[in-house]
Amino acid sequence: MDSVLISEVGPRDGLQSIQSIMPTLDKQAWISALAAAGLREIEVGSFVPPQSLPQMADVAEVVRHAITLPNLTVMALVPNLRGAETALSTGLHKITIPVSASEAHSVANVRKTCADMVNEVRRIVAYRHLHAPQVRIEVGLSTAFGCTLQGPVPEDDVIRLADALARAGVDEIGLSDTTGMANPAQVRRLFVRLRHSIGPLAGAAHLHNTRGLGLANCLAAYEAGVRTFDSSQGGLGGCPYAPGASGNVVTEDMVFMFEAMGINTGIDLRRLMQARAVLHRSLPHEALYGMTPDAGLPLGFVYANGRTCGPHLSPPPSSR
Amino acid sequence: MDSVLISEVGPRDGLQSIQSIMPTLDKQAWISALAAAGLREIEVGSFVPPQSLPQMADVAEVVRHAITLPNLTVMALVPNLRGAETALSTGLHKITIPVSASEAHSVANVRKTCADMVNEVRRIVAYRHLHAPQVRIEVGLSTAFGCTLQGPVPEDDVIRLADALARAGVDEIGLSDTTGMANPAQVRRLFVRLRHSIGPLAGAAHLHNTRGLGLANCLAAYEAGVRTFDSSQGGLGGCPYAPGASGNVVTEDMVFMFEAMGINTGIDLRRLMQARAVLHRSLPHEALYGMTPDAGLPLGFVYANGRTCGPHLSPPPSSR
Repeated sequence: MDSVLISEVGPRDGLQSIQSIMPTLDKQAWISALAAAGLREIEVGSFVPPQSLPQMADVAEVVRHAITLPNLTVMALVPNLRGAETALSTGLHKITIPVSASEAHSVANVRKTCADMVNEVRRIVAYRHLHAPQVRIEVGLSTAFGCTLQGPVPEDDVIRLADALARAGVDEIGLSDTTGMANPAQVRRLFVRLRHSIGPLAGAAHLHNTRGLGLANCLAAYEAGVRTFDSSQGGLGGCPYAPGASGNVVTEDMVFMFEAMGINTGIDLRRLMQARAVLHRSLPHEALYGMTPDAGLPLGFVYANGRTCGPHLSPPPSSR
Repeated sequence: MDSVLISEVGPRDGLQSIQSIMPTLDKQAWISALAAAGLREIEVGSFVPPQSLPQMADVAEVVRHAITLPNLTVMALVPNLRGAETALSTGLHKITIPVSASEAHSVANVRKTCADMVNEVRRIVAYRHLHAPQVRIEVGLSTAFGCTLQGPVPEDDVIRLADALARAGVDEIGLSDTTGMANPAQVRRLFVRLRHSIGPLAGAAHLHNTRGLGLANCLAAYEAGVRTFDSSQGGLGGCPYAPGASGNVVTEDMVFMFEAMGINTGIDLRRLMQARAVLHRSLPHEALYGMTPDAGLPLGFVYANGRTCGPHLSPPPSSR
């Protein structure tokens, strides 16, 4: 049976994109509920200065809780060496570093060129080697499919950057459709090229639903051999442009898609709804997206592993 | 350059699913605006008794207007011979007959077994032969991917029914995910089997977005060789289960997907937004879906035919 790893980014990408600050205990409860639903990898926060992202000020506490949960890879975002130093002291399992494939986006976002960021990553890899060699390092190549500042991003630029980062010693390199500009033909083409260039280091697809193509792009990535997919519960986060235009791919719908196709995710949709309820109770005014939570499961639905269940998911109401 | 035909079903599937009745002049203006945007096939209404669907009482008048528009295939739904007799007297170009692949759905919906429906189709084909041989006949096999009453629908049942309908003399047989239960693996498998069984008679994919998989399923159908896709402007219609859970695939998002992939639709997205504005002005309280209308086009977007345009679509506000 084929299977995929769904990497939940809601507690980081979702919670840092909204105005409200989720209390630490609620974050911990939500992450526990996600893990109980079968999520095996969760991006639990960012190691960034609290004055720039107060939503993430408690990230170390959140990590301390998450690493007590069984069978869970706990990851966090770090933007630079300073963040990595703090992160690697917490006992987490994996860090992820965003590196823009668009020069314009990189300079605007972190005031560093792409080449500067490769050097920063090299310093982080060296630090990891000395202080926490068991921690995995992922790079997510943001704006890999287009940039709102520079427009199209040449595929050669993306692949050249991936090659440089592979040489810098990271463990995984994924591609992110930060701006929701990707289409399935491009996703397939670029992931095939990525795998051709860096082989087993080719990592996750982080795709957005900005223009409604999120799951179609995931399907194309799957067909190109990708087996790790980022998504966010309720579609929280991912820079939505407008009300209703959800950013991140919705975990609930993606789990339904893969399981219905006979591809194992290890995730129980009913328990995933319980995690959604935890999120909704903590942030009752935040819009949660997703179609499967409202529609329930088709009559006669069978999980990839052969398990059956009734159609009703009894979700909390979507707020839209 | 590869291309697809997008068959707009909003004026039929959309308008018959809502409570409001769109005035005849507004229907005509909307259809004109859709045709001006480049839609080459539009399902403009249903020939059903006005007491059962008052929204469709003016279908003959709507057809009379639509057939004056250049380069447009005007089609309408007919449920039975009586509807076909009226339809074929109006000068339209094509009729579409829904036939359930699920026995339970067929009996519940039209009080006829699947075999009865094949006989009805045979009578319609004979009537067409005598009275309007230039009119094309499509059958849409509803519940082809699952049924809310009987659950899974065996793929052998779908193919057997398609074979019987091909022998009955129809021109095209499409598959409809009436209940939004399809997944991409199933869509690909069933359309490949359909083409294998009935060859060039294999027709349109009519897919729903009930669980968020609409465009992923369209992509899978495209990969299985399908080149005609039903969709509805603003996602109107298609039996949505719940607020926010749109039924039909959204024309705007599907056009964006195919054009971004380099597959020609012949549709101009800016003009499609003008048609959306006509719809919105006539039914201001009806929810319109779609992500691309809110997000606009990516910076540097290029149509499949090489034409460029700015990012802004200036849509009317989505109502959600």
